[in-house]
Amino acid sequence: MKESLNFIYKQQKELSVISGIGSLLGWDQMTYMPPMGVRDRSEQTALISKLLHEKIISDEFWKHIQILSKNIDNLSEKNKIVVMRLKKDVEKSRKVPSEFVDRFAKITTLAYQSWEKARTKNDFKIFAIDLEKIIELEKEYCEYINFPGARYDCLLDDYEEGMTAKKLHIEFTYLKKGIIEILEKIKSSQIFEKQKEIKFKLDEEKQKILCNIIIEKMKLPNDKSRLDVSTHPFTTAMGDEDVRITTSYNRPNPLFSFFSTIHEAGHALYELGMLKGEFKNTVISDSPSLGIHESQSRFWENMIGRNKEFWKYFYPIFKNISSPYLKDININNWYNIVNQVSPSLIRIEADELTYCLHIILRFEIEIGLMEEKINVNELSQIWNEKMNEMLSVVPKNDVEGVLQDMHWSGGNIGYFPTYAIGTIYSAQIFRKISQDNMNLLSEIRNAEFQNIINWLRKNIHEYGSIMDADEIIKKACGQGIDSKIFIDYLKDKYYDIYQI
Amino acid sequence: MKESLNFIYKQQKELSVISGIGSLLGWDQMTYMPPMGVRDRSEQTALISKLLHEKIISDEFWKHIQILSKNIDNLSEKNKIVVMRLKKDVEKSRKVPSEFVDRFAKITTLAYQSWEKARTKNDFKIFAIDLEKIIELEKEYCEYINFPGARYDCLLDDYEEGMTAKKLHIEFTYLKKGIIEILEKIKSSQIFEKQKEIKFKLDEEKQKILCNIIIEKMKLPNDKSRLDVSTHPFTTAMGDEDVRITTSYNRPNPLFSFFSTIHEAGHALYELGMLKGEFKNTVISDSPSLGIHESQSRFWENMIGRNKEFWKYFYPIFKNISSPYLKDININNWYNIVNQVSPSLIRIEADELTYCLHIILRFEIEIGLMEEKINVNELSQIWNEKMNEMLSVVPKNDVEGVLQDMHWSGGNIGYFPTYAIGTIYSAQIFRKISQDNMNLLSEIRNAEFQNIINWLRKNIHEYGSIMDADEIIKKACGQGIDSKIFIDYLKDKYYDIYQI
Repeated sequence: MKESLNFIYKQQKELSVISGIGSLLGWDQMTYMPPMGVRDRSEQTALISKLLHEKIISDEFWKHIQILSKNIDNLSEKNKIVVMRLKKDVEKSRKVPSEFVDRFAKITTLAYQSWEKARTKNDFKIFAIDLEKIIELEKEYCEYINFPGARYDCLLDDYEEGMTAKKLHIEFTYLKKGIIEILEKIKSSQIFEKQKEIKFKLDEEKQKILCNIIIEKMKLPNDKSRLDVSTHPFTTAMGDEDVRITTSYNRPNPLFSFFSTIHEAGHALYELGMLKGEFKNTVISDSPSLGIHESQSRFWENMIGRNKEFWKYFYPIFKNISSPYLKDININNWYNIVNQVSPSLIRIEADELTYCLHIILRFEIEIGLMEEKINVNELSQIWNEKMNEMLSVVPKNDVEGVLQDMHWSGGNIGYFPTYAIGTIYSAQIFRKISQDNMNLLSEIRNAEFQNIINWLRKNIHEYGSIMDADEIIKKACGQGIDSKIFIDYLKDKYYDIYQI
Repeated sequence: MKESLNFIYKQQKELSVISGIGSLLGWDQMTYMPPMGVRDRSEQTALISKLLHEKIISDEFWKHIQILSKNIDNLSEKNKIVVMRLKKDVEKSRKVPSEFVDRFAKITTLAYQSWEKARTKNDFKIFAIDLEKIIELEKEYCEYINFPGARYDCLLDDYEEGMTAKKLHIEFTYLKKGIIEILEKIKSSQIFEKQKEIKFKLDEEKQKILCNIIIEKMKLPNDKSRLDVSTHPFTTAMGDEDVRITTSYNRPNPLFSFFSTIHEAGHALYELGMLKGEFKNTVISDSPSLGIHESQSRFWENMIGRNKEFWKYFYPIFKNISSPYLKDININNWYNIVNQVSPSLIRIEADELTYCLHIILRFEIEIGLMEEKINVNELSQIWNEKMNEMLSVVPKNDVEGVLQDMHWSGGNIGYFPTYAIGTIYSAQIFRKISQDNMNLLSEIRNAEFQNIINWLRKNIHEYGSIMDADEIIKKACGQGIDSKIFIDYLKDKYYDIYQI
C-alpha cells in the first residue's frame, strides 16, 4: 500500500510537471513564437502529448491504482478521493487504444488545415470530408468507452462529468424559450427600434491601460500572472503560481480587449485559487468541469463587467481615456451601449442575451450528428435555417455560418454546451453572492472585489475536484443547474434597459 | 545495421526535440515568466534534463552505436561522421554515474544560491565553501572521464574539443604580453591622458529602434527569430527555424544594448546558418566548440560593430536619434569614444583591448585550482593581485572582484577560455574575409553585410561539427589559432586611435 501510494503520487507529480511544459509550448506558440518555429513546435508538442499519454496509461500506474482501489476502505479520506478520481480517469484513458489516439491526432491536424482552407475559400465542402471522418471517430471513441446511456453523454462526460443530453435538453429548452421570449419583446420595444451602433476608437496603448486597470482591480497577482497578446484570448497554467492570460487589441469592437481580459482573468483567478495544499500536484487540484471553469469567466465578464454599478466606477475612467469620442454619452447611455442586444451571426461577438442561442444551435446540431439524424453535407443549410429560426439572421456565407468555430475540427464534440452551462451557473452564483453580501452593489460600484473573490475561493475554487460540478454548485448555491435563475436575471436586466 | 541506423537517427531526433523544449523553458524563465513561476519551472527543467540524460546514456542507444562502430567501414560518409561523433559523446556521458550527475546538479543549485547571497553580503567566504565542493566535483569528474593529459584538458574538452592547457598557455602568454605592451603605450599617450568618460542618455524606445535597425541590417530573419529583454543577454535555439536573442536596455552605458544585440545576432546567424539538410536533427548539426560560437558573436561585435567604416553608416543614425546629446561630437570623436580603452574591474564591461586580460586572469586561477596550486580561500586575494598586475586596477570588494561571474557556481570550469579563443578566431576570420573581399570596407561603410554573411555561412556555419574547431579555422583561415593576428589587429587599430 505504501509503495503504491508513493508511486501514484510520484506519477501524478510528473504528469503535472509535464503538463505545465505542454502549456508553455502552447502559450509560446500563440504569443511570441516566430512563425517558422511551427514545424519544430508541433514535434515538441506531439512528444509531450505522447509522454503524458504513456504515463497515464502505463501498466504500472494502473497496477498500483488497482491495489489501492481494492483497499479503499483502509485509505485516508484524502487518499480515497485521489484514488477514486484516478481510477475513473485512468480506466477511461486505458480503454482507448494508442493506435486510435495517434489516428485521432493525425486526422484532427488535417481537419484543422482543411477548416482553415475552407474558411479561406469560403466553402464548407472543403471541410466536410474531414468533419465526416471526425464524426466517425467520435462514434468509434464512444464504442471504446462503452459509456452507459446516449452516445452524446459519453462525449459530454469528457468536459462536464455527470451531465447528460437529457438533462441538457430540459435546461436548453427552457433557456431557448425564455431567451426568444425576451428577445421578441426587446425587438418590439421603441428603444430597440431607435438604437444604433455606437462607433468609437481606442488605440492599442489605451486599451492596454484599461486592461491593466481591470486586472489590478481583480487582484490578479503580477508575480504569478501576466497579460499578453494572441489572436484568440485564452488562459493557461504553466504551474500553480504561473497562470497567464491573453487578449487581442485589434478587433473592430474596441471593448473586445477589455471584456475578454475580464473573462480570462476570471479563469485565471480560478486557476490560482484552486485547491492546493495536500492536493498539490494531484488529479484533484484541477477543475471538475469546463462548465465550472466557464462559470468563473462568465461571472466576471457578465455579472460584474456588464453590471450598471461596475460602470459607475469604470465609465469615468473610459471617458477620460477615450476622449473626445464619449463626451456626449452619459453613464446611462453607456450602460445601454455595453448591453445593447443585437442578434448577430458570430458567436464570440454575440451579446449577453443572445449568446446562449448560438450554443443551443450547436448543441442541437451535435445531437443530430451523433444520433445520425443530420448528415454532415446538410450542415451548412441546417445551420442557416436554425439561425433564422432562433435569431432571425441568416449568414450570407459559410465563414459567417457553419465554419466560424474551430472546435469541431479538433474533434471537440460536446464542448460547446459547457459555455452555456457556465453562463447559467454564473447567474446562480451571482444571485447567491447577492444574498450573502448585502453590500455587494456598493462594492462593485467602488471596484472593491475582495469579498467577491473570497466568496468564489471559499465556495468554488478551493474545492478543486473534490466534488463534481453538480455537487459544488448545489453546495455553493443551494441547487443544481437552473436556467430559470439565468432567465429571471436576463428579464430583470433587459426589461429595465429596454423599458419593457 | 539498418535497424541500428534507424534507431540512432530516431534517438537523435528525439534528443533534438527535447533539447528544443529545454531551450524554451530557459528562454521563458529569463524573459517573461512571472517571478513566482520559478518553483514549478525548476522541476520542469530538471525533468527535461533527466529525460535528455536518460536518452543519451540508454543502453539500447549505446548498443546500436557500438554495432555501427564495429561496421564503420561499411557506412556511408554521412553515417560515418554521425556514428563517430555519437560514439565519442555517448561514451563520455556514460562514464559519469547518474548518481554523480544528480549530486552535481544539487550542489551547483546550492552554489548558485550561495553565490547570490555572497554577492548580496559582499563576502566571498559565503560562496567559498560551495566553490570548494565544486572544485572537488570537477576533480571527481575528471577521474570518471579518465582523459589523457592534464586534468584541465579534460574540462576544456567539454567546451573546446581538442584544446589543451598547454596550447592555451602558449597563446595566452603571447596575448597577455601583447595586450599589456599595447596598454602601456596607450596609457602613456597624450590622448589617453586627456580622455574622459562621455555621458549621454538614450531612452529605451530609442535603444530599441537602434537594435532593430542593426538586426535588420544583419538580415536576421524576423519569421525565424525575435529580440526580447532579459537581465543578461543571450541567444537560444528552440528549433532550426526558431532562434531567439535578448538584450538589456537599462545598463549605465546606453550603447550596451546595441553592442550586445550585434553580439547575440552573430550567435543567432550562426545557429540559423548551421548545417542542416541531411544532418538535420543529428549531433552534427551543432557547433563544434564554444570558441567557434564566440568567434561569430565577437566578429560582429568587434570586427564589424567597432569598425570605423561601420560608424560612417550608423553614427548619423545615432546622432539623429539621440539628439541633442551628440551634437558636438563628430564621427572621429565618436569612433574613439566607442573604442575608448579604459582598464576596469568588470569583465562584461571591459573594452575590446583589455577584455582578454580578464579571461587570462580566470584561466590562470582555474589552472591553479585544478593543479592544486591555489586554494579557494586565497582566491579573493589572488584575484585582486592579478587585477593589479595585469590591469593596474584593484577591486574595492569581492562583488567587483572574484564574485562578479556566475560561471563557477554552475560548475563551469574551463569555460572562460572560450571567450578569448573566440576573440582570437574572430580576428583571423576578419583578416581572411578582408583578403577574400576587396570591397569589404565599402560594404561595411554601407551596412551591406550579405557578402560577409555568405562567407561566414560557407566557411564556418555550414560545417556544423563535421570537423572540429581547429580544422574549421585552418580550412577557413589557412592556419589554426594564432594570437599574433589578433595582436597585430589590436596594434593597427589602437595605435591609430591613440596616435602612437
